Order: sequence, then structure tokens, then C-alpha cells
Amino acid sequence: MKVLITGGGGFLGSRLAAALLARGTLGARAITRLTLLDGAFGSRPEHPHVSVVEGDITDAGVLEKAVAKDTAAVFHLAAVVSGAAEADFDLGMRVNLDGTRLLLDKLRRCERPARVIFTSSVAAFGGELPEVLDDSTTPRPQTSYGTQKVIGEYLVSDFSRKGFIDGRSLRLPTIVVRAGKPNAAASSFASGIIREPLNGERSECPVAARTGVWLLSPRRAVDAFIHAYELPPQAWGANRVVNLPGLTATVAEMLDALKRVAGAQVAERVLWKPDARIEAIVKTWPARFRTARALQMGFEADADFESVVRDYIADERIRL
Amino acid sequence: MKVLITGGGGFLGSRLAAALLARGTLGARAITRLTLLDGAFGSRPEHPHVSVVEGDITDAGVLEKAVAKDTAAVFHLAAVVSGAAEADFDLGMRVNLDGTRLLLDKLRRCERPARVIFTSSVAAFGGELPEVLDDSTTPRPQTSYGTQKVIGEYLVSDFSRKGFIDGRSLRLPTIVVRAGKPNAAASSFASGIIREPLNGERSECPVAARTGVWLLSPRRAVDAFIHAYELPPQAWGANRVVNLPGLTATVAEMLDALKRVAGAQVAERVLWKPDARIEAIVKTWPARFRTARALQMGFEADADFESVVRDYIADERIRL
Repeated sequence: MKVLITGGGGFLGSRLAAALLARGTLGARAITRLTLLDGAFGSRPEHPHVSVVEGDITDAGVLEKAVAKDTAAVFHLAAVVSGAAEADFDLGMRVNLDGTRLLLDKLRRCERPARVIFTSSVAAFGGELPEVLDDSTTPRPQTSYGTQKVIGEYLVSDFSRKGFIDGRSLRLPTIVVRAGKPNAAASSFASGIIREPLNGERSECPVAARTGVWLLSPRRAVDAFIHAYELPPQAWGANRVVNLPGLTATVAEMLDALKRVAGAQVAERVLWKPDARIEAIVKTWPARFRTARALQMGFEADADFESVVRDYIADERIRL
Repeated sequence: MKVLITGGGGFLGSRLAAALLARGTLGARAITRLTLLDGAFGSRPEHPHVSVVEGDITDAGVLEKAVAKDTAAVFHLAAVVSGAAEADFDLGMRVNLDGTRLLLDKLRRCERPARVIFTSSVAAFGGELPEVLDDSTTPRPQTSYGTQKVIGEYLVSDFSRKGFIDGRSLRLPTIVVRAGKPNAAASSFASGIIREPLNGERSECPVAARTGVWLLSPRRAVDAFIHAYELPPQAWGANRVVNLPGLTATVAEMLDALKRVAGAQVAERVLWKPDARIEAIVKTWPARFRTARALQMGFEADADFESVVRDYIADERIRL
């Protein structure tokens, strides 16, 4: 079977690719071709089944190369992140909305309806919210990124209803701990305050210690992508969107776990530097959810924040 | 002030235009220019303040003619109706989604943020629904038309949050009684079973007598457009979408009112001719709402279905 990952050169995309190559199968079928599409690749995986397409998802020629007529599985991760989509409205609309629309239109021409996993986000929610959100909470995003993700969900649902694709949208919590460099996501600090201190570097925290974050580790996110794919259509029914399970941790609790795992001198490398722009975006995101539907469907959250930190240390081969 | 009505040649658009010309003002400002944009016009209103633009809303040249730099008020009614958008997916996406997007992008270039009334629809809702919907019910449309309308709402909300426009989205009940000819809307029957018998003609009803319809008269719809415009921004706050008040009537209740107003021989001109395609679309639409927010904001429904029929007879100068 042919599998496509958009954003396949990114943080989650490359981890998903590695996991798929390690498994070799998806939904009990052998993966014969894994296409990774991204604007740029740091390193290109060397594997006989992998092909890499470098380019813009809104470019018809690029999509032509990335989507084969018999593509069976698509993980659509490519996106301009929240902070960047807020700073550059046109860029966010083009990549996050037009890009999704063009991809879906292209997939519609496949020989059989491809199964499509769309990565939406907790940023779908905002404004006046209940203390604890649940499966009935209506998305009212307060960022352009969140708006573009919600619109993507509605497109995926309608394309699925029409039988053009078999789509499933996952509202991801903030992914923590992301490896690599800080990025333009407003949530970048949530990984930075763990990652940089573990690298022996200082990290600036732009939000207050009491700020709660609804989070999921990269390991559990990759598990969720694969699980979402492997669930049969009847497990989804007419509702093709789900809030993934996550873990609520305040910045204070996160630093406390870091201290327990790596010691006080590591945790003390975090400096407090309030940033009104970041605070304004992050405070529109909800921190607590009841995710009854996702749990019933078999999706899983991390056990606690200490294991999130320990998994990161193991995955990145960090020596304490 | 300059006012634009997209779909200004259509049933509601032309009535809104007539109402605005009769008032001469909007939000206490004199209307100096009323531009009507539509694909085609049956009759063009002769009035020194009216200019007519005939063309496709997705055509940049047409939008250039319709949107002046100092356009202050926009009523965006242009749309491909539900049945047509379901039958021709690409047409619905192009006009209802791309058309709205292009209009908003054009308005973003105005000298000051225009106040924009977007006509969404009860078709935003579908699937598994509570018996009575309320302001917290999440839209899960089961038609492409409904999907395109919900996406339009999210665009209008985000463009408003960014300060590009001052937008307000109204989820209209089914408009009954529409004058003129049957159209491709799946709800066309709801007007047809009143209009055709009053014209001395037979009308085929494609749904069962017990089918409930959530409806609003053209008079109250035009009132709602103007009221939505004249409410100050703080009456809307961050939430720019509202379910308009309406009236629930079953087909049986509608025919009963027709009988009381026009006599049994008129009501007996309705023939029962079940149509599975229409039934399938209409049954996904909800029939009962609690519209607390709209009522609190001062929007009004019709008193009862008999007054809906009487208003239609008066407006269309029908002699019984």
C-alpha cells in the first residue's frame, strides 16, 4: 500500500515515518511506498520504500508528485504553526486552508477513497469556555490557526460524507516535549522549558507558573495517528472529529517533574520572562477536558508528566 | 453610505433592497449608494441610488465593480441553494465557499472595516441532534451546503476578530413563503405547498405530513438582516453567530392554516408525492430550537403560521 505523510519532514511527521517503517504495515497491509512531503527536509530518511517530495503543498505540481492514484493512506500534518499563522494571516490561510482544500481535491481523484488522518488542534477552542471541556463543546477558535483547523475538520467531514475520502480528524493537545529548536508556535515554551534546561541551556518562560497546558507526548501522538487510521469506519460513524485524550499540567508542575527527574540545577535554568502576545494566545486555549469518546475508541494519554520527561530523555538519548 | 447586497437580485435580496430604499437609512446614516450583485436579474430596480452588477461572485473583476473602497455595509446573501450544492459539489464549493472567501478578502482592502451580515442557515445542523436545539448545539452539517455555510461563519468570525470586518452571521430558518417559482433548494416544497395552491395550481409535497419545519417569513428575515446590522458590536461580543428565532410547523399544520385562511378547496390542491432524496436531506434539519440569545438581542419570529400565510397574501397582492 502507498502511504503519504504531509509535513513528513517535520517533528511529528518524521517520527510517524520512522514508526511506520519500523512496523512495515498499516491496518495489516504491507507498506510498499512511503511518500514524505514537506517544504524542506533536515535529513532525508534512507530507506528503499521512502520517497521524498520537497515543495509547497499549495503547488499543483508538488501535489501531483506526492499523491499517487492508488494512495491508500494519508496523514495530513503539514501546517503553518499558530504563532506564524497569527502573525501572517495570508500565509496561514494559504497553507492551512488552501493547502488542505487542494490536498482533499487531489485525493478525491484517487481510484479508491483514501483513508485520511487530519491533525487538528486544541486551538479549535477558545473564548468563553467551561472549566472542563467535553465532546459537546462547540469550537470557537480565537486564533486564525484554530479557525483554519476547524475549517479543515468540516472539509474532511464533508468529503467523507460524500464518500470522496474516509477521513478522521484528531484534535491534538499541545505536543510536549518537542525536540529540536524553538518554533513560531505560541506553545513553543511548553517544550522549551524542558528541552533547553536538559541541553544545559537557559530557557525563557513567557507565561505564568500557574498556566495550565493540555498536552500529549510525541510517542502518544504517533500512537494516536496509527490508531485513528486502524479504527474501522463504523467506530467513527458520521462524526469524524475527536478530541484526543491528554494530560493537564501547569508550568509549575512541569518544572517540578523536571526537577525530580533531572535535579534542581537543571530546573533552575528556566527564567521567567512574561510575553503579553504569547500569554494572550495561550490563555484562549483550554487546559482541561473530558475525552469520553476518544477513551472509548481506545486512544490513550500519557500516565503523568514525569513519564513524558523520561520518554523524551530516552528518545533523544540525553545523558543526565 | 454605500451598501452592497450580494444575491441582490434574488428573492430575499430584492426584498431587502426594497426595504432599504423605503427606509433610506441604515444605522441612522443615509444610504447614498445601494449596489446589487447577482448572477442574473429578473427586473432591475429603477432608483437613482441603485447600481446593479451582473456577474459571478468568484470573478475578481465582478467583485472589483461591486465593492467600493468605502463600502460600509454588506449583506452577503449570494449562494447556491442546498439541493444544487448537494447535486453539484464543485459548484457549491466554488460559489458558497470560494465566493465568500473572495468577498471577505476584497472587503479586507476597504478603507474602514465594513459591517457584514452573512446569511448562514439551519442547515448548519444535522446528524444526531437533541429534540430541541439551543445556542450551545455544535453544528454537524449533513449536506455540503450546510458545511459551506458553517465554514463561512468561521471565516466571518475570524475576519472580525482580526478587525478586517465587523461581521455577523445569521442562521436562517427555512424561509416560507417564498414567492416565484420552485427552486433547487431541498426546502422548496415548504413554500410550494402554500404558494401553488394560492395560485390555483397543484403542488407536490415530497415529505410526510408530520414533517416539522423550522421557518421564518420573508418579512421577519428582512427585519432580522437590518436588526443584525444595527446592533452595536458589543451586543455581539466575541461570538459573531446567532440562531435566529423561528416557528416550528409541521406540513399538516401548514396546510391546516392554509385551509383556515383560503378554504379547503385551496388546501386540497396539495398532492402527496414522497421523494426519498428530498426526505433524506430535510430529515437531517432540526425542527425545534430554543433561541435565547437571539431573543435577548431583540430578533423576532412570526407569531403563528396563519400570519405567515396572511402576510404572503398581502405582500404578493393575491386575491382569494
